[in-house]
Amino acid sequence: MTYKKSILDPQGEAITNAIHGMGFQDVNEVRMGKYFEISVDESSNTLKEDIEKICDNLLANPNMETYRYEFVDSEAVQ
Amino acid sequence: MTYKKSILDPQGEAITNAIHGMGFQDVNEVRMGKYFEISVDESSNTLKEDIEKICDNLLANPNMETYRYEFVDSEAVQ
Repeated sequence: MTYKKSILDPQGEAITNAIHGMGFQDVNEVRMGKYFEISVDESSNTLKEDIEKICDNLLANPNMETYRYEFVDSEAVQ
Repeated sequence: MTYKKSILDPQGEAITNAIHGMGFQDVNEVRMGKYFEISVDESSNTLKEDIEKICDNLLANPNMETYRYEFVDSEAVQ
């Protein structure tokens, strides 16, 4: 979940400056966002709709943020 | 970038409770973390080491957090 491109990201800018200050010039830009690992009950047949409702109504600010989600096997994020 | 499993995640717990309060019972647990999109200069041949140094020395708290990273094409995160 990140800010829309049109939205200023002061934290991302501060991090980019810090990285350049550390001497890493191969980094162009950093955008910071929120990351959620949501463990779900696989047997539910409304998962996709539920995750989107949760993102739209709770986790994301629709005016400022966009989000992506993917379903992965729990071992993949140990 | 998320808290290590052994670390309490009060924000994640609060979100889990809110989600259950919304009536979504197919969500078991939520863990919240930080997400960074770092645009880099592909021609650099020290990218992997640089990203790991940046994570280890700036973005992550090694005592409390773990991180994963992947290189993706910039179009993939529009």
